[in-house]
Amino acid sequence: MSKQMILEKQQQAVEILNEKNIDMWLTFVRETGNIKDPMMDMIVGTGATWHSAFIITKTGETIAIIGSLEEANMKTVGTFKKIIPYLKSVKQDLIKTLEEFDPEKIAINYSRNSSLADGLTHGVYLELIDILEETPYKFRLISSEDIVAALRGRKSQTEVDLIKKAIDETLIIFDKVTGFLAPGKSEKDVAEFVRNIVREKGFEFAWDEEHCPAVFTGPDTAGAHSGPTDRKIQRGHVINMDFGIKYNGYCSDLQRTWYVLREGEETPPEEVLKGFNVIKESIQMAAAAIKPGKAGWEIDKIARDYIVENGYDEYPHGLGHQVGRVAHDGGALLGPRWERYGNLPYIPIEAGNVFTIEPRLTIPGYGIATIEEIVWVKDDGVEFLSPPQTEIYLIK
Amino acid sequence: MSKQMILEKQQQAVEILNEKNIDMWLTFVRETGNIKDPMMDMIVGTGATWHSAFIITKTGETIAIIGSLEEANMKTVGTFKKIIPYLKSVKQDLIKTLEEFDPEKIAINYSRNSSLADGLTHGVYLELIDILEETPYKFRLISSEDIVAALRGRKSQTEVDLIKKAIDETLIIFDKVTGFLAPGKSEKDVAEFVRNIVREKGFEFAWDEEHCPAVFTGPDTAGAHSGPTDRKIQRGHVINMDFGIKYNGYCSDLQRTWYVLREGEETPPEEVLKGFNVIKESIQMAAAAIKPGKAGWEIDKIARDYIVENGYDEYPHGLGHQVGRVAHDGGALLGPRWERYGNLPYIPIEAGNVFTIEPRLTIPGYGIATIEEIVWVKDDGVEFLSPPQTEIYLIK
Repeated sequence: MSKQMILEKQQQAVEILNEKNIDMWLTFVRETGNIKDPMMDMIVGTGATWHSAFIITKTGETIAIIGSLEEANMKTVGTFKKIIPYLKSVKQDLIKTLEEFDPEKIAINYSRNSSLADGLTHGVYLELIDILEETPYKFRLISSEDIVAALRGRKSQTEVDLIKKAIDETLIIFDKVTGFLAPGKSEKDVAEFVRNIVREKGFEFAWDEEHCPAVFTGPDTAGAHSGPTDRKIQRGHVINMDFGIKYNGYCSDLQRTWYVLREGEETPPEEVLKGFNVIKESIQMAAAAIKPGKAGWEIDKIARDYIVENGYDEYPHGLGHQVGRVAHDGGALLGPRWERYGNLPYIPIEAGNVFTIEPRLTIPGYGIATIEEIVWVKDDGVEFLSPPQTEIYLIK
Repeated sequence: MSKQMILEKQQQAVEILNEKNIDMWLTFVRETGNIKDPMMDMIVGTGATWHSAFIITKTGETIAIIGSLEEANMKTVGTFKKIIPYLKSVKQDLIKTLEEFDPEKIAINYSRNSSLADGLTHGVYLELIDILEETPYKFRLISSEDIVAALRGRKSQTEVDLIKKAIDETLIIFDKVTGFLAPGKSEKDVAEFVRNIVREKGFEFAWDEEHCPAVFTGPDTAGAHSGPTDRKIQRGHVINMDFGIKYNGYCSDLQRTWYVLREGEETPPEEVLKGFNVIKESIQMAAAAIKPGKAGWEIDKIARDYIVENGYDEYPHGLGHQVGRVAHDGGALLGPRWERYGNLPYIPIEAGNVFTIEPRLTIPGYGIATIEEIVWVKDDGVEFLSPPQTEIYLIK
């Protein structure tokens, strides 16, 4: 992320702190080379070896308290106005800085709901509590999840442009896959074909390369979140692929569905067309219902109910998540009210959010139909950032 | 990491659990695509989206409790004997599994001392405590830091071979740098030269690309942990470079020092030679003192004292860290007894540990002299995995 974009995001964070009346946001980390708080890329732009405090205040101050050996680097990166280097322990400078601002509320990065607001490890949390032991600040810590959800969720025009660019490049690759798919090729063959293009073009993978892309062919396939296997494409298979790239720091995440025509077939069987169309329609219905202020579970329910009403099992996951610098971004989720999703399906959708919509259903005897589109929430509804798939792609 | 190596590490973990009399090791995670417990690569070999429990018992059982959508992937990865998929919440299956084994001690990944044993985020920790609320297991949780330190620190022959291979490839690149260095080139030019070789060869960077390599020229340079600048190499500069690659999953981390001869000079000035030699000698003295059972601070003190006795400032960091799948690996550290290093300098050194030795000193008016070697601890002392730099490299 460029220095310019980080400074923009810091400025946005200051606005959010004021809106939510939180005095200070403290990102406290160590050894980010081993485990990195997901907010570091967005508001700091470099790593830290020793215990380090990155502070943004409601008044617009930005302060980095870091190991002295990293002072020069922090100056070069240039994203924090004030840099306080320490030699032996972060404690004194951190307490002194807190005393100077005397914040009533200090947001730190822990959250039961959102992994992106949960970059503070438990050991480092214990260290922080110990540092603050004899100060009043120990009792003023709150979760940063509201800040993080707003900051990551409200995409700027620059961010949306970058996501759109990643989507465009991804759809070019999907088109190439349509030309590559053929009976006898394995899921692994398809994945390798895609990965080679990604490498040639110098893109990154939007998620773990082992299942990016994920490729699923036929009725016996795993269907989701699984690496490609030696299973071979056969005539009469429904194929789907889940794939995204990271390009200039922003991710795409899309799915498309194909059908491999059997000898003598000109069009797919009724059951296949019906399954595909139910998915396609459920996406349009869900997208039409998205408005700022709605809860994600309400949107999920529209697609879920429609699929079940048409005689299919409900999908075993949420309808959609936010996309941004990571494939699973943001706070608010278009998900059902299941325990595993915590409060995410209840967080109000906001203008500027970018969501996937990705229902799924099984077409018995053929395979799994999925389409994943990406939409951008505006004041009065959504704009599709991906041109939606309207017909099942046919392989002859 | 290959399935074979993961199974070997799991077997080693079982031995360590028995040695330390810990009944169960629970790695509890979610959304590893956003923030990943550093132990996942070593003992699981894939990621997890929803709350997931990866359990290794003293009796040698391995159990993965994961979101149902990831069951097929987990089977393909094949590193856990028992897979328990869940749909809506991990709670019931986790409690049931704990009741089945009824462990007295359950190690979880949090640690104030070691970032590698601190992959449990605070929010996920709170979730775990909530899940265990009405069970006795809530009171049986301990830190996994002893397990992690032993498991990461005791390298197998296979692991040492891979580190050695990464070192060999890195030293080839250092040799190329010697041919490239010349007055007028900037730190950034040198870094770009190195990064291009890394990309051509298909290696990964051992740490953040922005300061891998780190290049420092002359008396006014930052000296460490900082990205390369536009500062230009001049005659009379001491140059050092800190650089490592990741190759087949294992890292190198090395430093070398050069001197740029001035017009008419055949050899470096006395001060430069003295500075270089003090570094070189301090490494040999420290290396000679390393034995299983010693504490890291005792080793650090030998090099630190020698440098100070020779009239230089002490280095503002530890003498050396472990190297392995990450550049900063292991538990035990060759570091001073400073608060920021927690208990790491006190952990006994063990056979199988692989350490860097990397003292530093400033040669006033010339630059910073550093050498970083890598040694492998054996029962009776160390073996150098990197052929030590014995003379300062000269640039004409």
